[in-house]
Amino acid sequence: MKMELLDRLIDCFLKFPGVGRKTAERFSFHILNLEAEKAHDLITSIQEVKNKIRNCKICNNLTEDEICDICQNDSRDSSVICVIEEPKDLIAIEKTGYYRGRYFILLGALSPLDGIGIEDVKIEELISHIKAHPEIKEIIISTDADAEGEATAHYLIEVLKPLGRKVTRIGLGLPVGADLEFIDRNTLEQALKGRREV
Amino acid sequence: MKMELLDRLIDCFLKFPGVGRKTAERFSFHILNLEAEKAHDLITSIQEVKNKIRNCKICNNLTEDEICDICQNDSRDSSVICVIEEPKDLIAIEKTGYYRGRYFILLGALSPLDGIGIEDVKIEELISHIKAHPEIKEIIISTDADAEGEATAHYLIEVLKPLGRKVTRIGLGLPVGADLEFIDRNTLEQALKGRREV
Repeated sequence: MKMELLDRLIDCFLKFPGVGRKTAERFSFHILNLEAEKAHDLITSIQEVKNKIRNCKICNNLTEDEICDICQNDSRDSSVICVIEEPKDLIAIEKTGYYRGRYFILLGALSPLDGIGIEDVKIEELISHIKAHPEIKEIIISTDADAEGEATAHYLIEVLKPLGRKVTRIGLGLPVGADLEFIDRNTLEQALKGRREV
Repeated sequence: MKMELLDRLIDCFLKFPGVGRKTAERFSFHILNLEAEKAHDLITSIQEVKNKIRNCKICNNLTEDEICDICQNDSRDSSVICVIEEPKDLIAIEKTGYYRGRYFILLGALSPLDGIGIEDVKIEELISHIKAHPEIKEIIISTDADAEGEATAHYLIEVLKPLGRKVTRIGLGLPVGADLEFIDRNTLEQALKGRREV
């Protein structure tokens, strides 16, 4: 059966993470059988996520406003800042309910093999941010425990120590080689509690 | 993190077949990180599939035109018609490359427990179609091998036999309880070859 439109949609779904041909076909038939209203909801949701979600001007978290709700929240502890790679990592940490400080998101990790260097992640911006905020007493480096995350952590320790704040690395409980966003809440909470000064 | 737009997109993906929360979240972040052009392609594909794909006026197959390409194809054998439940089943049979006849798609199967009766599937239309086409010599009933498909097949045999054509049921090789669209090509080809007169 020649069906270019359906094939084009299948190709779009094939680019989704972890989706193979059979699943992409099922998704396309799901769309085909969807009520018009539900299809409209899906399209609107995609458009709004693409058009209205941006990075917080202060910490790079995802937000629908200029400043994210965590940066806007006066009850959060301004004396501690948690440095992470991606907004997904923030969601994982927030789910523990344990951490009440601020965040700074690098939007990536150093990866020389992939050509991702210091200028490609928000390290300069992190340094400026810390210099501009003397109330920050502790910086918790919570990059992933994989090669790129560790490389980034090592570089951050080097450039952050001279700023005269307490620098810690998230530690206890994080299995080596793991991606932070997939860690369960309890392990994450233990990892936060078990952070060590470096 | 309060993020209604992202939550709304996650909810849309949660309605996709076989998609749980973690996968819906990954899909939403995939959308978030997609280049603007690729997101536009996805939206356009969804819209076009919804707006331009309809059922063939003759056989109910999916088509972008009034009449599907199989009904338009003069080289297909008009003396045999394969009766199936869904357009997905047609794609599966076409992939075998074995069948060269025509199709008729019921757009469903009888399921009294779900309140799906004779008037909800295209059985009346099938009977009219066969009456209007004396060149049809054989009707291959290829509904699924599950309870609904078998019930539909039994009813079809009853109403089609009086029309004086050869009525066969797709058989050999189809495992009982299976859904036709998920059968491998070889089994499907064997099932077509091993059809028996009823």
